[in-house]
Amino acid sequence: MDIGFIGLGSMGAAMAMNALKAGHAVRVWNRSPGPARALAEAGATVVATAAEAFAGDAVFSMLADDAALRAVLIDSGLLKQAPRGTIHVNMATISVALGQELAALHAAQGLAYVAAPVLGRPDVAAAGKLNIVAAGPDEAIARVQPVFDVIGQKTWRVGTEAYKANVFKLGANFMLAAAIETTGEAAALMSGHDIDPHAFLDVISNTLFPGPVYQGYGRMIADQRYEPALFKARLGLKDVRLALAAAEAVDTPLPVASVVRDSLIDALAHGDGDKDFAVLGKVAARRAGRAT
Amino acid sequence: MDIGFIGLGSMGAAMAMNALKAGHAVRVWNRSPGPARALAEAGATVVATAAEAFAGDAVFSMLADDAALRAVLIDSGLLKQAPRGTIHVNMATISVALGQELAALHAAQGLAYVAAPVLGRPDVAAAGKLNIVAAGPDEAIARVQPVFDVIGQKTWRVGTEAYKANVFKLGANFMLAAAIETTGEAAALMSGHDIDPHAFLDVISNTLFPGPVYQGYGRMIADQRYEPALFKARLGLKDVRLALAAAEAVDTPLPVASVVRDSLIDALAHGDGDKDFAVLGKVAARRAGRAT
Amino acid sequence: MDIGFIGLGSMGAAMAMNALKAGHAVRVWNRSPGPARALAEAGATVVATAAEAFAGDAVFSMLADDAALRAVLIDSGLLKQAPRGTIHVNMATISVALGQELAALHAAQGLAYVAAPVLGRPDVAAAGKLNIVAAGPDEAIARVQPVFDVIGQKTWRVGTEAYKANVFKLGANFMLAAAIETTGEAAALMSGHDIDPHAFLDVISNTLFPGPVYQGYGRMIADQRYEPALFKARLGLKDVRLALAAAEAVDTPLPVASVVRDSLIDALAHGDGDKDFAVLGKVAARRAGRAT
Amino acid sequence: MDIGFIGLGSMGAAMAMNALKAGHAVRVWNRSPGPARALAEAGATVVATAAEAFAGDAVFSMLADDAALRAVLIDSGLLKQAPRGTIHVNMATISVALGQELAALHAAQGLAYVAAPVLGRPDVAAAGKLNIVAAGPDEAIARVQPVFDVIGQKTWRVGTEAYKANVFKLGANFMLAAAIETTGEAAALMSGHDIDPHAFLDVISNTLFPGPVYQGYGRMIADQRYEPALFKARLGLKDVRLALAAAEAVDTPLPVASVVRDSLIDALAHGDGDKDFAVLGKVAARRAGRAT
Repeated sequence: MDIGFIGLGSMGAAMAMNALKAGHAVRVWNRSPGPARALAEAGATVVATAAEAFAGDAVFSMLADDAALRAVLIDSGLLKQAPRGTIHVNMATISVALGQELAALHAAQGLAYVAAPVLGRPDVAAAGKLNIVAAGPDEAIARVQPVFDVIGQKTWRVGTEAYKANVFKLGANFMLAAAIETTGEAAALMSGHDIDPHAFLDVISNTLFPGPVYQGYGRMIADQRYEPALFKARLGLKDVRLALAAAEAVDTPLPVASVVRDSLIDALAHGDGDKDFAVLGKVAARRAGRAT
Repeated sequence: MDIGFIGLGSMGAAMAMNALKAGHAVRVWNRSPGPARALAEAGATVVATAAEAFAGDAVFSMLADDAALRAVLIDSGLLKQAPRGTIHVNMATISVALGQELAALHAAQGLAYVAAPVLGRPDVAAAGKLNIVAAGPDEAIARVQPVFDVIGQKTWRVGTEAYKANVFKLGANFMLAAAIETTGEAAALMSGHDIDPHAFLDVISNTLFPGPVYQGYGRMIADQRYEPALFKARLGLKDVRLALAAAEAVDTPLPVASVVRDSLIDALAHGDGDKDFAVLGKVAARRAGRAT
Repeated sequence: MDIGFIGLGSMGAAMAMNALKAGHAVRVWNRSPGPARALAEAGATVVATAAEAFAGDAVFSMLADDAALRAVLIDSGLLKQAPRGTIHVNMATISVALGQELAALHAAQGLAYVAAPVLGRPDVAAAGKLNIVAAGPDEAIARVQPVFDVIGQKTWRVGTEAYKANVFKLGANFMLAAAIETTGEAAALMSGHDIDPHAFLDVISNTLFPGPVYQGYGRMIADQRYEPALFKARLGLKDVRLALAAAEAVDTPLPVASVVRDSLIDALAHGDGDKDFAVLGKVAARRAGRAT
Repeated sequence: MDIGFIGLGSMGAAMAMNALKAGHAVRVWNRSPGPARALAEAGATVVATAAEAFAGDAVFSMLADDAALRAVLIDSGLLKQAPRGTIHVNMATISVALGQELAALHAAQGLAYVAAPVLGRPDVAAAGKLNIVAAGPDEAIARVQPVFDVIGQKTWRVGTEAYKANVFKLGANFMLAAAIETTGEAAALMSGHDIDPHAFLDVISNTLFPGPVYQGYGRMIADQRYEPALFKARLGLKDVRLALAAAEAVDTPLPVASVVRDSLIDALAHGDGDKDFAVLGKVAARRAGRAT
């Protein structure tokens, strides 16, 4: 396929690279030019503007947040000039409100729009093992499925209203945040009773809670090792905030999300915003007087 | 081995049955006589008092809560007359304070004491697939290991101070409670956006959160089916309360446990105390105006 | 003085009327024309545009929320054409972020800008008994003090940086919300023990907590009477949300505000958003199974 | 009247002294002998056992907590031998469960029992300005009213079931705790925006929240001065815990109490349990990275 990639952070660059390797023709654009170089060496065409990338069969955007997406696609006027035949696949984690606004803007322009946020961190993206949660018109998703197939291990189709994929993603990240907070609190309980959290988390992650989250974040918490950050606390807070907003929009309280939000703000207040999401374990220990 | 079982609720009876089937000689006692019958038919010796069961190589007690254990073993004077050679294995989920008191009482009497709470519900117990978290003197645990091997799929040894196994168990049940509450909140967020929680939980439990908890409780929440109860909300509240007490004893706040406690009280207030722990999903929906 | 009033809701209209009665020349404007009539009868000059009201010695704006203020004063281009000599006194409860943006916009235009949110509901405004929390350039506040003196019973000067008055106001409203939530929870505790909340609140408001908040909201809660609304739950939620945002901007968790936010969302979810703020008492009773 | 006082901490001693000064014949007893001396010099009769103090027209007990009361009055067998004609007035802050148990024990012995916890700290007790919340048989309260009149400024009669006075007291202390926590959070918000909390609390306590709580605790928080302790955080936590238990007994969640409990545990974890209740302000500042 003839595709574009807009936004080449660690996630976007890994996805573009996998598309390239699979033989697709890839045009890439990034706000800062650096990340495009490695892709150029691998055969990508580097273009000078986001509008040039928004062409061909489909364009995949992976921008950092609502503000970046708004700047690059909406305020720039890009969407208003975009070619009708190009499917836009937005893979970023954005607010539900912006997800709904984007769907309306694309519809008004006659553009096919798919929301396809992903589950997985950069190492997973590099391995082409992401889980893709896709919503939008069936035929559009079917058209881009070959690219999804090289980016991810599985595509979860969750309906035709694109913004619902954004709700999914925020719900998932809320659950992730809650699991990390809970693990941190449980580890603090163990430490308080002079029990090595490694022993506790070993039992937990081999019985009730198998899988990558409790094992991976649990180990970082037990090790009290929060760098390098695979998923920064600051970005985790952003997603929890978006989940709370998505819930408030439908009059749904999320008390656990409120607690996690407060803990993440505590982390930022102590200068740990750029540490890993697992730093919630440090916040829990600090509340118990066992970290500073 | 020549062993006794005190307390034949659905968990205790299942464990005793597995011990019997493996060829151990089993004496059984229960406060109400009914549950002993099936075991008698399978070859167990029914005794008339808990003291008679507390004899032989080892006695396994699985009493409902702190009060039952205190009545049967302490206030009755049983521990003061118990034979020195019998190892007491306490498999119940009890408070950390009582766990410490029991260790001291056994030590004062020269009795070997093992705390060995289990992870798993009655169906898991019946299948002999429990995870056993054992703490106490190494030689005592080694002696009873053959029984553990037919009761459970694995024994996790967590040190020589018995009460630490109780801390483990309460920490695990706190994490379980938090996971159910979180799943309930996430399901409410989905419903609020007209997304079928089944679809969401299908993605979640096949990606971030594999394993029995999110899948099993998630399905009950998505189905809005809270009966029959495999683990009653009322007992879940008891365990969360014990986890909070265990944490307060070492000056450790557990904010998520506080939230879950409030939600469980809400469940009880609405007459759902004997429904399954998953009824936290109904509480989350009610907060959002979508359940009564 | 020669002054304008922009925004004639129940608060703005009452303030404008008091200014009129005190002999000031008052120009008034409102988005919908209705509210201006009574003021016109009392001698006010009704103008057709907000820009016409933004003239003379000073203009007082009392717009509903951030969006209304942004529409009328910023997006309309009004501020860019406003006369330099007119002091703008913004009495609305707005976000701290907008408060900071407004200060910068006025400074860029050479306009004197005062933030002066008020404590008190419409009945207090009508009586000219508001407490005014004012921040901005000293000389500007001094110029408009004669108007403040007929609108309020006291002006609290809280510095020269205008946005700080917005922080004050949001802090005050957060404390108000917390007091109502707490009163509702305490009343639920009393009802649970078959104690008449009136009796309890009578003791409380005559001992520990004198003053209008616990007495006034306490009575509504004890009466279970939430209409007519003097301060709508929906607006209370808006202010708590703004307080949380103001706190997050300086990395400060407000756990009680998080709890109140969740309770207010619960109120909205049950169709009570337009009932009085005191409806938090109903939410507390519902959690205890004693309201629907 | 001929009365006894059991328990001469700072509260009990101040009340006994006021009774003495008013001309009552007072027998006093305390577990440790020290506090009785000043009362002896003022004319009190020091007795050697609590049983000797439990005689005459009435005995007033002011013991530290449930455990002390249970030890002195119940486990000692004192209540079983107490003279029928003596009215027992229990002024301590105790659990609702113990309050109910005490009522039953007194009834079984034919003893008149009044629960009369007080609002006010030691300085208020010394001034004879306590507010007394009394429940029990009308005639018993009427008999001891002359003593109440010299101990307190007002007696609030709240029914004939004694334990309800305990519910009142716990409800009041919960509201006190919530107000202090809220004040601490608001002060943290102000500090975050470089606003002097004194200025904010000056406005608040002169407008929305007059009275001793916001003013007194507010000043301590603004001063960051938590010693000497007039009401220790450790005792505040005890009362919040009792309020939560009283609420759980009637299936009533108290989310704000849960938050305050967590904050108080945080205070204890940082070695501040013997500082004043106002130290919640330090906890709030610490969460925001501005205290250690």
